[in-house]
Amino acid sequence: MKKINLSELETFCEKSLVAAGMSQSDAKITAEVLVGTDAFGTHSHGTKNLFGYIKKAVAGGVSLTAQPEIVREGPAYALIDAHNCIGMVSSYKAMELAIEKARECGIALVTVKNGTHFGAAGFYSNMAVGKGMLGIAMSNVDPNMTIPGARGMILGNNPISYASPLESAPSCFLDIAMSNVASLKVVQARKDGKSIPDTWIVDKNGLPTTDPSHYPEEGAMQPMAAHKGYGIAVLVELLTGVLSGGNISSLGEIPSWCFVPEKPNGVSNTFIAIDVDKFAGRDNYIARSEAFMGALHNTDKAQNAERIFVPGEIEWEKYNKAKEALELPDAVADSLCELSTYNGISIPWID
Amino acid sequence: MKKINLSELETFCEKSLVAAGMSQSDAKITAEVLVGTDAFGTHSHGTKNLFGYIKKAVAGGVSLTAQPEIVREGPAYALIDAHNCIGMVSSYKAMELAIEKARECGIALVTVKNGTHFGAAGFYSNMAVGKGMLGIAMSNVDPNMTIPGARGMILGNNPISYASPLESAPSCFLDIAMSNVASLKVVQARKDGKSIPDTWIVDKNGLPTTDPSHYPEEGAMQPMAAHKGYGIAVLVELLTGVLSGGNISSLGEIPSWCFVPEKPNGVSNTFIAIDVDKFAGRDNYIARSEAFMGALHNTDKAQNAERIFVPGEIEWEKYNKAKEALELPDAVADSLCELSTYNGISIPWID
Repeated sequence: MKKINLSELETFCEKSLVAAGMSQSDAKITAEVLVGTDAFGTHSHGTKNLFGYIKKAVAGGVSLTAQPEIVREGPAYALIDAHNCIGMVSSYKAMELAIEKARECGIALVTVKNGTHFGAAGFYSNMAVGKGMLGIAMSNVDPNMTIPGARGMILGNNPISYASPLESAPSCFLDIAMSNVASLKVVQARKDGKSIPDTWIVDKNGLPTTDPSHYPEEGAMQPMAAHKGYGIAVLVELLTGVLSGGNISSLGEIPSWCFVPEKPNGVSNTFIAIDVDKFAGRDNYIARSEAFMGALHNTDKAQNAERIFVPGEIEWEKYNKAKEALELPDAVADSLCELSTYNGISIPWID
Repeated sequence: MKKINLSELETFCEKSLVAAGMSQSDAKITAEVLVGTDAFGTHSHGTKNLFGYIKKAVAGGVSLTAQPEIVREGPAYALIDAHNCIGMVSSYKAMELAIEKARECGIALVTVKNGTHFGAAGFYSNMAVGKGMLGIAMSNVDPNMTIPGARGMILGNNPISYASPLESAPSCFLDIAMSNVASLKVVQARKDGKSIPDTWIVDKNGLPTTDPSHYPEEGAMQPMAAHKGYGIAVLVELLTGVLSGGNISSLGEIPSWCFVPEKPNGVSNTFIAIDVDKFAGRDNYIARSEAFMGALHNTDKAQNAERIFVPGEIEWEKYNKAKEALELPDAVADSLCELSTYNGISIPWID
């Protein structure tokens, strides 16, 4: 574990991207998204991947200079072609556009095709909250899930997130994939030689198993809540790859962004902003949201339960701690150190 | 089990509502929604409840004559006050408005406050498909679910549905509540004296139990996929009761529509329409959706699995069968017969 100031880490990321050929402004966006994601504690989707994106650019699988282009738009919608730019750049600009259009129309949807791994969906949802709106962000991804009655990896676990304005915390927010658990948990159990619940993966025959060694070679993740998670993952695919005219996970059109660095990832992302002020008014929305969160918090606890959390509460607690100093797990720090060795830009660790 | 023609059943429902004091046009809408829901096989939310709605009107808990009123609107949004009218009437008109606005703007959201039980969310989503759009419909409901770390009924299992245009079938659609299973399944297991999986309910201490007799007196439903289903149920509450400035399930503001017939139900419903033609074009959307559904269908089956279904496939098969003759389970037929006895309007059963 290593510690660093958030702004120092942002500067390192920015410098690394500029050194790799990205413009200062796009590097700033990318750094803000990745470091913000680490601050929330979602280390699997933050700066740990920065070197991976740079290596992907070197391998020709992503462009550090391409610019997203609006190819169709109207009052409350837009279709953007990311032209294989870094996912944070197209996603950030797409959510900015959705927010701008929602300010006029009440709601807006912007979908992006030919994108690259966008990191944590929750970052973009929270951008809308920064402008007083409710934000929704989602992506299709390379297939890693089975579907009810099937075997093998059929469908992406297509993440979706939302964030909604509050006063007592920056937002109520959720960022989830449609598999029962993250595949990293299966991989970790396999490393540790531990068995897993039979709701996490299926084996090569499509049957539930407690043996993590089936994944990823032969098995596949299980969708959360069986047909319900399957159905929502299909919705995300419809609202991303299908709506945008982009690639579809189940058609084998989306390679893993990291395991196939030389090929464009080609995901589609969709961003929705809803201007809550337009409906019953912003003050009322906030007051009623706070009353709602209060009711959830003040509920009688289950036996042996210590706390009840509202969505996003854990992330905001981590974020507040990170504002003093961000603690990075070894895997993240190691990846950053490798990048530092590669580009010669030093990292000002606190300790 | 009894059989009836769909149009005959619609006529009976219409006549019954008109006899109870509803206008012909609102009765037609309500009948269309309820019979359409039975045709999909969702008998818990179809004509079985018609007599309940009429009894609720007699008890003063719902108005058969009130008209939904647009209280705020703009290019892609509207806020409607249902003024405690029948849920099918306000919901149908709200989705019509969302479709109209989406035709101009690409996407639109209409939220309704002071509504009454709207039946099956999937009916309204499919209205959008009828106009070539993707539809989303959701509602908050009276609390019946616990949340992680809590005991008791804290939050509605807030249903959400979507429907998306296809060619090989009328739509790809899903209609789900955020509990792991429908509470009726728990009640049935209790009647049958059977144990249930420990993921369905919690007992009075908030602990998972296999004994269905804890529900509904002391226990509560479990959210699907734990914090994930909890988080989505919170989103639905934010997009309905909070956004509309209406009632919130967790604040005890929503009584059961059927168990407390004398009080307004007071739910909020939200409807979203997305005009897929605006993005990559309708033809492309349909072609790619078909390719996607084809890939899901043609996947290798799990051992012992007979079929792989895409969302809505089971419902459309039932619907197609119902077009010849609708088979109603005894509980539905009994409820309709009671209504027939009450209002003297005969039901032309096939057998």
